[in-house]
Amino acid sequence: MIPPMSTTATPATASHPVVTEAIELARDARLLGSTAAILGWDQETMMPGGGLEHRARQLAQLARIEHSMATSERLGELLEKAAEATASLPETHPDRVNVREFRRDYDKATKLPATLVEELASTSSIAQHEWAEARKASDFPRFRPWLEKIVRLNREKADCFGWDRANGERWDGLADSYEPGCTAKYVEGVFVPLRKRLQPLLDAVKGSSRRPDGSFNDHPMDLDSQERFARFVSGAIGFDYQRGRLDRSTHPFCSGSHCNDVRMTSRYSKNCMLDGLGSTMHETGHGLYEQGLDPNWISAPMGEAVSLSIHESQSRLWENQVGRSLPFFRWAKQRMPEHFGNAAGHFSAEQLYSAANVVEPGFIRVDADETTYNMHVMIRFEMERAMISRDLDVKDLPGEWNRLYKDYLGLVVPDDRRGCLQDVHWSGGMIGYFPTYTLGTLYAAQFFEKAKEAMPGLEDGFAKGEFRPLLAWLNANIHRHGRRYLSADLCTQVTGAPLSADPFMRHLEAKLKPMYGI
Amino acid sequence: MIPPMSTTATPATASHPVVTEAIELARDARLLGSTAAILGWDQETMMPGGGLEHRARQLAQLARIEHSMATSERLGELLEKAAEATASLPETHPDRVNVREFRRDYDKATKLPATLVEELASTSSIAQHEWAEARKASDFPRFRPWLEKIVRLNREKADCFGWDRANGERWDGLADSYEPGCTAKYVEGVFVPLRKRLQPLLDAVKGSSRRPDGSFNDHPMDLDSQERFARFVSGAIGFDYQRGRLDRSTHPFCSGSHCNDVRMTSRYSKNCMLDGLGSTMHETGHGLYEQGLDPNWISAPMGEAVSLSIHESQSRLWENQVGRSLPFFRWAKQRMPEHFGNAAGHFSAEQLYSAANVVEPGFIRVDADETTYNMHVMIRFEMERAMISRDLDVKDLPGEWNRLYKDYLGLVVPDDRRGCLQDVHWSGGMIGYFPTYTLGTLYAAQFFEKAKEAMPGLEDGFAKGEFRPLLAWLNANIHRHGRRYLSADLCTQVTGAPLSADPFMRHLEAKLKPMYGI
Repeated sequence: MIPPMSTTATPATASHPVVTEAIELARDARLLGSTAAILGWDQETMMPGGGLEHRARQLAQLARIEHSMATSERLGELLEKAAEATASLPETHPDRVNVREFRRDYDKATKLPATLVEELASTSSIAQHEWAEARKASDFPRFRPWLEKIVRLNREKADCFGWDRANGERWDGLADSYEPGCTAKYVEGVFVPLRKRLQPLLDAVKGSSRRPDGSFNDHPMDLDSQERFARFVSGAIGFDYQRGRLDRSTHPFCSGSHCNDVRMTSRYSKNCMLDGLGSTMHETGHGLYEQGLDPNWISAPMGEAVSLSIHESQSRLWENQVGRSLPFFRWAKQRMPEHFGNAAGHFSAEQLYSAANVVEPGFIRVDADETTYNMHVMIRFEMERAMISRDLDVKDLPGEWNRLYKDYLGLVVPDDRRGCLQDVHWSGGMIGYFPTYTLGTLYAAQFFEKAKEAMPGLEDGFAKGEFRPLLAWLNANIHRHGRRYLSADLCTQVTGAPLSADPFMRHLEAKLKPMYGI
Repeated sequence: MIPPMSTTATPATASHPVVTEAIELARDARLLGSTAAILGWDQETMMPGGGLEHRARQLAQLARIEHSMATSERLGELLEKAAEATASLPETHPDRVNVREFRRDYDKATKLPATLVEELASTSSIAQHEWAEARKASDFPRFRPWLEKIVRLNREKADCFGWDRANGERWDGLADSYEPGCTAKYVEGVFVPLRKRLQPLLDAVKGSSRRPDGSFNDHPMDLDSQERFARFVSGAIGFDYQRGRLDRSTHPFCSGSHCNDVRMTSRYSKNCMLDGLGSTMHETGHGLYEQGLDPNWISAPMGEAVSLSIHESQSRLWENQVGRSLPFFRWAKQRMPEHFGNAAGHFSAEQLYSAANVVEPGFIRVDADETTYNMHVMIRFEMERAMISRDLDVKDLPGEWNRLYKDYLGLVVPDDRRGCLQDVHWSGGMIGYFPTYTLGTLYAAQFFEKAKEAMPGLEDGFAKGEFRPLLAWLNANIHRHGRRYLSADLCTQVTGAPLSADPFMRHLEAKLKPMYGI
């Protein structure tokens, strides 16, 4: 199903000179982006507070120069000639992929007028501040005019990028930046059946009288030991510390300057070791994807991640399919005494496993469990889609949000701080982004089912610390392709079927049914 | 003697529009340099090994873009107009200073043909590698052709920059980049009397039968405690950790991205706490200079250090005049138990002081004590001056080097590894740099004498941890001027006299005479 991979993605035959020239010029602009990535990482992890104002200037300058390099006429002409020169190559040939994807990026970058780019940037810069204040005070009216402006500018943006006016909708023009080729119709086709199966499962869990043992979620553990253990675990599953780092930050992230210098962060909570471990597994999944990209194609599409959803599939897979499994905890429990002494001695691997899998509907997306998380995402998708299509007036957002939380999760939202003001995305100008979280979750389950099929006994190996077979499989089947395929096509390539909610539901049901006796 | 400082260096009256435009355009290029500084710091402290190759590409790109911005025709035209617009302002007016110094930099940058810049860069990149290998094997003939090429390219460079053919020499054209306005004649005028007084002092020390107690230099102390103590001391003398950091690196340095984000590094040795403390005091001196620059003029000459020698004066002053004084050790000794417990309990402040001031001629510059250090520098100045003027053929360097070590320090150099191959500077293409180390040492002593005169009881305060008066004096008299004056003029401004070896000799003699009973 997967075409055989050569050890390097560099074509065996020499490229046409105009192709080489176009690709090198386009890579040069990306190189500046990789510099900005280091500055961004530094800002979150190392920079003293006094550096903030100047850092904003440095990053704005890099963005400005990068944009001018990435939209130069010369680059456009070269890419056009390179497209002609590669037209007869196979679709998946590295030269053709690089030229095609660089052109996609070039077209997008040149379609937005500089005035709109600047207005979006300056608006979201203020809007993020206003949002933070509004959230603190649970004051939606304060944020409303900014969200209205962001929605308006995003509509303009979608129209600049363009969308299928016969069969599509305006939201599609926004989603494509985060998830190439993604449309609202596609998302809906995935989400509707997912919800149909999630809802009864959640109802059964809520109705069950059996409750898994969650006591390990309230057991204090030393923070430095947690960090050392997290570093040990991420190394054990395959993160190469010669080509990356793990530090602490307020909000965990993984910043990929390039595959040989991957910067991850995590955070640890004194009372709940599983929070920090889960966050580290998640970021390590992102990090392993970055490290698995082709080092011959740094700063070029053949060496870049497909999309946000495929990136999220890698983080979710290691966080959930691996890091919330019983075999994983059997192994982890064995290795914990080296880092914690006897501090968790009286907890069994089964208790860790059940603590990691408690289901509990709540108001906050980032605190949600594996089951309810997707409900949060679906609600946001419905909201932003309706705001962009004008079916929903921004002023009605809180009411509609709260109605859906009652409907999906049975919760009465007490205030907008714990409601429609909780996420940073919209204030940062990002509309069309949310669905990638759930798409990634579903891809993770579908990829993992395929991996288990390809490697019988895969999960049993986790209990012995054998994670490399899974990583090698992901390297070969997903990471090394770079942007050769769109997300949906990659899924079919890898699993033989289009994306479906079934593997994820099987994953959840196999875990929750015995745990909740349903 | 010092003109009164306004609280901010921004002119009270609005600048001429062309001045503002010229300065902003010139600052924009510098801003990219401050980005490169962060990448350089990251490379030495945080970057995983795998990032090296890509980092070189990132830095080369930043240098290329910065050079093209810093030499643009548009900038040249604007600076010319701005020079006219500021011609009637006082010499020390911020606008006039900025325009004058930006023009100096512009002229220097545009005088070097790009081909020579590239040849120097690529030659020294290989030469540094060849030098490292040659040093390991103590194999001068291996390095010789590279040094010959570097000398030849530096001669060309000097001719491009220009030098006074009537009264000067070619070396001057090189030194000016590190030390604006510096000439070989000036250096000679400082070094010759210095040596005349240093030599008899050194002979007396060597001839004395009394030896200070150096036992603390061989007393193991915990490394992490050393680092915490170093951080405490640098904070206590005034380094602001809200606007800077201290990390570890193989070779200590201070990298100033700008005054609100100063990155210092140090290194610690298990057996000699004073090594790490001295290195931290030295880098903190650099760091305090950077933090003392005017925040209104980040990325502009009014907010930049005068020269390498003045920078070095600040590091040496805190390292030697403060950090090797008895009052300093009285204070430090009192604060050590908080960081080391009783690990150095049986050493007195006097023993720390004497251990920090042992004189011992050796082969290696970077390991040298305060007295012999300058001999190492003088030898290097003689050598590079002779190579540039063709009085010395590169092939004769080892013999001449060894002859001077016998002459200045009474040492027989055993091999070139511990002789003319020990320093990185020449292999890195830097000729004209070495004298700034000794000029800085002398400036430090002269500034400190003046500070003591201005603030009676200054040193006694050190014993009570009172370092802020000295820092405030340096801030007002040196740091806040930025590049308003050339080094030599600043010295006269601050101390009322041109640079002289006398204050330094008084400093040394006052310390060594009682210590060695001479």
